[in-house]
Amino acid sequence: MKFAPRLTIEQVEEGQQLAPRFDADGLIPAVTTDYASGELLMHGYMNREALQLTIKTGQAHYFSRSRQALWHKGATSGLVQTVRELMVDDDQDCIWLRVDVAGGASCHVGYRSCFYRRIPLGSDQDEVTLEFTDTEKVFDPAEVYGDAPNPTKL
Amino acid sequence: MKFAPRLTIEQVEEGQQLAPRFDADGLIPAVTTDYASGELLMHGYMNREALQLTIKTGQAHYFSRSRQALWHKGATSGLVQTVRELMVDDDQDCIWLRVDVAGGASCHVGYRSCFYRRIPLGSDQDEVTLEFTDTEKVFDPAEVYGDAPNPTKL
Repeated sequence: MKFAPRLTIEQVEEGQQLAPRFDADGLIPAVTTDYASGELLMHGYMNREALQLTIKTGQAHYFSRSRQALWHKGATSGLVQTVRELMVDDDQDCIWLRVDVAGGASCHVGYRSCFYRRIPLGSDQDEVTLEFTDTEKVFDPAEVYGDAPNPTKL
Repeated sequence: MKFAPRLTIEQVEEGQQLAPRFDADGLIPAVTTDYASGELLMHGYMNREALQLTIKTGQAHYFSRSRQALWHKGATSGLVQTVRELMVDDDQDCIWLRVDVAGGASCHVGYRSCFYRRIPLGSDQDEVTLEFTDTEKVFDPAEVYGDAPNPTKL
């Protein structure tokens, strides 16, 4: 599968050719929402191969920056994401995946979504205190991932 | 307003301090969805100042990479985004804005969302033909932006 070369703004914005823009590291951001609820599940990255495999197989593939490797989401955890709809944005530098998640969780910390903390608005405080919007983990990361290294970078 | 230093994985993932991770360019990706419909409207970036202003004012601020400048969304177009809920992800390297959009459009091409084209799945074709999911523009970009340069980069 080939992606089209990016020749004109009109082609990229208003055309029907898939001509994604990969950044200097060869990556394009990928935003993943739950098909049914619309909830934002995760924000990741794809390289060319991950995008091609996602299109071909209908299952979400990403590129793991922490592991520097192609990442078939759910290969370890079983929490496979079945893509119901795949979209590209105006300038084709972002991919949107609308997915069903096997097992109902997407976050390596064990929550349903990676987004389980709210930033309060209107604050002019020196420090911001996050509010948990989800406190119940769907799974125990230690059981699922064992001693695999945590992907979070400080 | 200060952001907390990132000291441990537990603090970042399970704590209540806002300790965002900005990349080498000082940016953090920001995902913006429509509060009512859940639709993905845009994918942008914030620098420290944009995030601080968004928290303080409750209106979406981004950092424009094409213009290399702080960007109060809607300052030119009037399509201001009022933040209803602001979230941060597990490792605090992504911000999620749930917004109401004045005027109902978020995309500089004139569509309601930046995501108006679908990538068909299961294709093993050499070329991918995008499908338009939205063909009606909410506004005429030429009228709104005049001769301001198009932000799309080839």
